[in-house]
Amino acid sequence: MERHFERELETLRERLLIMGGLAETMIHKSVKALVDREDPLIQAVLALEEEMDLLCIEIDDRCFTLLALRQPMASDLRFLVAGIKINSDLERIGDQAVSITLRARSLITQPEVKPLIDIPRMARLAQEMVRKSLDAFVRRDTDLARSVIEADDEVDTLRDQVFRELLTYMMGDPSTIPRALNLILVSRHLERIADHATNIAEDVIYMVRGEDVRERGDKELRKGFRVSAAPRIR
Amino acid sequence: MERHFERELETLRERLLIMGGLAETMIHKSVKALVDREDPLIQAVLALEEEMDLLCIEIDDRCFTLLALRQPMASDLRFLVAGIKINSDLERIGDQAVSITLRARSLITQPEVKPLIDIPRMARLAQEMVRKSLDAFVRRDTDLARSVIEADDEVDTLRDQVFRELLTYMMGDPSTIPRALNLILVSRHLERIADHATNIAEDVIYMVRGEDVRERGDKELRKGFRVSAAPRIR
Repeated sequence: MERHFERELETLRERLLIMGGLAETMIHKSVKALVDREDPLIQAVLALEEEMDLLCIEIDDRCFTLLALRQPMASDLRFLVAGIKINSDLERIGDQAVSITLRARSLITQPEVKPLIDIPRMARLAQEMVRKSLDAFVRRDTDLARSVIEADDEVDTLRDQVFRELLTYMMGDPSTIPRALNLILVSRHLERIADHATNIAEDVIYMVRGEDVRERGDKELRKGFRVSAAPRIR
Repeated sequence: MERHFERELETLRERLLIMGGLAETMIHKSVKALVDREDPLIQAVLALEEEMDLLCIEIDDRCFTLLALRQPMASDLRFLVAGIKINSDLERIGDQAVSITLRARSLITQPEVKPLIDIPRMARLAQEMVRKSLDAFVRRDTDLARSVIEADDEVDTLRDQVFRELLTYMMGDPSTIPRALNLILVSRHLERIADHATNIAEDVIYMVRGEDVRERGDKELRKGFRVSAAPRIR
């Protein structure tokens, strides 16, 4: 029974990693569709979203069944609750990638505003944050999780850079306004993806440290992690 | 023991309603700060966020403790898992309200682009969606939850209207671009608030219908609710 439970937890971990891999691929392909102006990549992202929706339901079911039937204690319980939250963040990352492709669909039929440098950079960073947050989850590595939370600042810096640069284009040539606006919104989707990765990293820290944080009644420590995800002035 | 558990669930429900009330007040005050150009309201929202952060931790603790110590079955388990998810959506609604006030802080020091009509309308709708989604949770009312999901379309229509109108201002007078952009981003924060309310409504439907959906293996039904929250072309 105990070993069967261990195997079920292991399967759950694997399924969450597959879900994370799907999220990463969707981020990559959606921004590549925009940068390389490749319409087939848009279709690929939409197909991946369907796959992801099904996997998300499967993972929710697994977590729920394990909670209901196994009535796990302490650290397994924290793992399952973290699993439910991480699953939902990954699904929302997929939604953001879909939103990017929908903007790409309109943008690639029009002339370029400018060569895109910072947006693909943001995408690479966000993708890396997603991968590291999942690695941190699997390895129960709070240092790695903390590095994800720190990387969020870099994404925010790029977001501000994209904003300022496109603002200059818009003010200089109002005919670029609709396209530049769409690019700004793409950068906001990437920012939200990075925020979701940050949420995952926070859940990992809570999962790993939950016990001693609770025992010590050290709410400030937990609050500290939450506060770091609060929106800054943008 | 059983009655004690019931009382604990009741307290949890009450705390989630208070959290929902805080979220509503933050939405209202953040947009009022912008529309009426009242700086003190910005401070009020920031103070409410601190209150909300503490309550969010308390609710998480309550859910977790009940899961760990009571090992609830079936419908109570679904209620607690829904509670954890709803708590996290409400916290993110608070984050969005804070983002709105930070934009308001910069906007109210500059001349108005135009009198704001659709943005306060969006805020009222989003606030109503939050209230109804929490009511649906407490009353286990799937019809009410479904009406929240439907209201999301109205918010999206207003968001498109705000976008088109401000685009016209920007193209007509490039000096309005930075302010108009900030207003567009305010409308996006309100859209995200409505999305979170939609997530809450979906969790309510899943919580109430979970059992028979699972028993019938009717994944399409559950998927149907999820798909309705997927991003549309914006």
